Amino acid sequence: MNYIFEIELEVRDYECDIQGIVNNSVYQNYFEHARHKFLHSVDLDFAELHNQGFDGVVTNVDIAYKNSLVSGDSFIVKIALEKQGHLRMIFNQDIIHKETGKLMARGKITTVFKSNGRPVKPDIFVDALRTKGIDFKETV
Amino acid sequence: MNYIFEIELEVRDYECDIQGIVNNSVYQNYFEHARHKFLHSVDLDFAELHNQGFDGVVTNVDIAYKNSLVSGDSFIVKIALEKQGHLRMIFNQDIIHKETGKLMARGKITTVFKSNGRPVKPDIFVDALRTKGIDFKETV
Amino acid sequence: MNYIFEIELEVRDYECDIQGIVNNSVYQNYFEHARHKFLHSVDLDFAELHNQGFDGVVTNVDIAYKNSLVSGDSFIVKIALEKQGHLRMIFNQDIIHKETGKLMARGKITTVFKSNGRPVKPDIFVDALRTKGIDFKETV
Amino acid sequence: MNYIFEIELEVRDYECDIQGIVNNSVYQNYFEHARHKFLHSVDLDFAELHNQGFDGVVTNVDIAYKNSLVSGDSFIVKIALEKQGHLRMIFNQDIIHKETGKLMARGKITTVFKSNGRPVKPDIFVDALRTKGIDFKETV
Repeated sequence: MNYIFEIELEVRDYECDIQGIVNNSVYQNYFEHARHKFLHSVDLDFAELHNQGFDGVVTNVDIAYKNSLVSGDSFIVKIALEKQGHLRMIFNQDIIHKETGKLMARGKITTVFKSNGRPVKPDIFVDALRTKGIDFKETV
Repeated sequence: MNYIFEIELEVRDYECDIQGIVNNSVYQNYFEHARHKFLHSVDLDFAELHNQGFDGVVTNVDIAYKNSLVSGDSFIVKIALEKQGHLRMIFNQDIIHKETGKLMARGKITTVFKSNGRPVKPDIFVDALRTKGIDFKETV
Repeated sequence: MNYIFEIELEVRDYECDIQGIVNNSVYQNYFEHARHKFLHSVDLDFAELHNQGFDGVVTNVDIAYKNSLVSGDSFIVKIALEKQGHLRMIFNQDIIHKETGKLMARGKITTVFKSNGRPVKPDIFVDALRTKGIDFKETV
Repeated sequence: MNYIFEIELEVRDYECDIQGIVNNSVYQNYFEHARHKFLHSVDLDFAELHNQGFDGVVTNVDIAYKNSLVSGDSFIVKIALEKQGHLRMIFNQDIIHKETGKLMARGKITTVFKSNGRPVKPDIFVDALRTKGIDFKETV
């Protein structure tokens, strides 16, 4: 995949559950945090956008869990970006174990921008990407 | 869908995020809690199974977010069940707004049972379902 | 203690950590949810108050952990109320194991109301309590 | 305070609630993560200790919330250590805003070590501290 952004994180013990592995829902937290850090890297801010009445909204999440993250693990969250049609921005996100390089989880997160509760074209976002010269796939 | 189980829950304010809506990751908590309550209803216990070296593991999560749950909302989590091939149990789970009847989110959660880290046939689970006379679809 | 409100909850498995017990931080979630449900019972709403520019803010939390909640437990969160001086409302909150009646945790949560970031007298709250005839201790 | 350890963290947006500030319960996550990282720094591991039947258990948490962490904040969690009597290890933990140096929260976390559910002297921990030449206060 054509990754355009990555951050390194590590498992926190409170994120693990009875099975001693990171709870499935926490991967969404990791993915979200990576997306928001990516927004920062193109000078956009999720909280500020919200205050301006402009919300990035997740409409679909598809996560394949390949291997379990456990206490002590460090990992990289990587992002590849795809614009689908006029409205959808899709974040293809991989979680890679730092030491082993293993793919731990692969997420496909579909988002739309909304203003006053209605979908709007993600122009702010696309402009920010172009300003920074960031590459993304366009699909129908 | 042919629902076989449901529980009623309500939004807790700490589950909401900056946008004032339930954070996307929390829906996985709701889905998981409903599955574990369903296990209880067929006399199985997630924590006990783990202590017996038998883990239900989520391999894939696909969630369509249709409408946002907000502070004060009550909702029903419903489950329909599907056995796919020899190993996979798929939980089709809907979250329905209690007052309006609106579909808020639809999840397809694919699980396998593992023992000593390796996939095993979900016989314990299938037997429990049959004992209780619970219906599930079988697909290839 | 002179309890004025209680709710019943049950442990959700995702709230448990590697040790197989409910993580310490989650007790704060339970306490908060009970407080917000109590507000509802006197016709106040935490999210609405926030939208009106009026925030209940926790300034201190003191929790004694007596026994560990585990998977499958049901429990009661009870509230006794105390007004301290002009500004502070203190929620004395106990978590009682439903089956055994054991005290699991005891919290003392000190709150103030803020408007535009500055502490204000909790008149809205006190009026709501008086309207409902709800008893609270007053201390200096 | 005589700090012996610190880590730097940053607010993640999903940790913020309706009020747009980090939810109070999350500070316990920050404190816990800092403690576990500190354990690592003296070659102890929370998850491993648990598997050896040796659990660090929090018996009391006292947190003073001074200022609210918000989206985008970076902060330092600092630890000072105190041995109280024969059994209790107390972690005095401060959260300091990175940019402003402001104290955001101060926690006093009382812990005991347990084996088979019964309190035991924290010898493993004290030995690890002495091996590393780490200073701690002893009180009665």
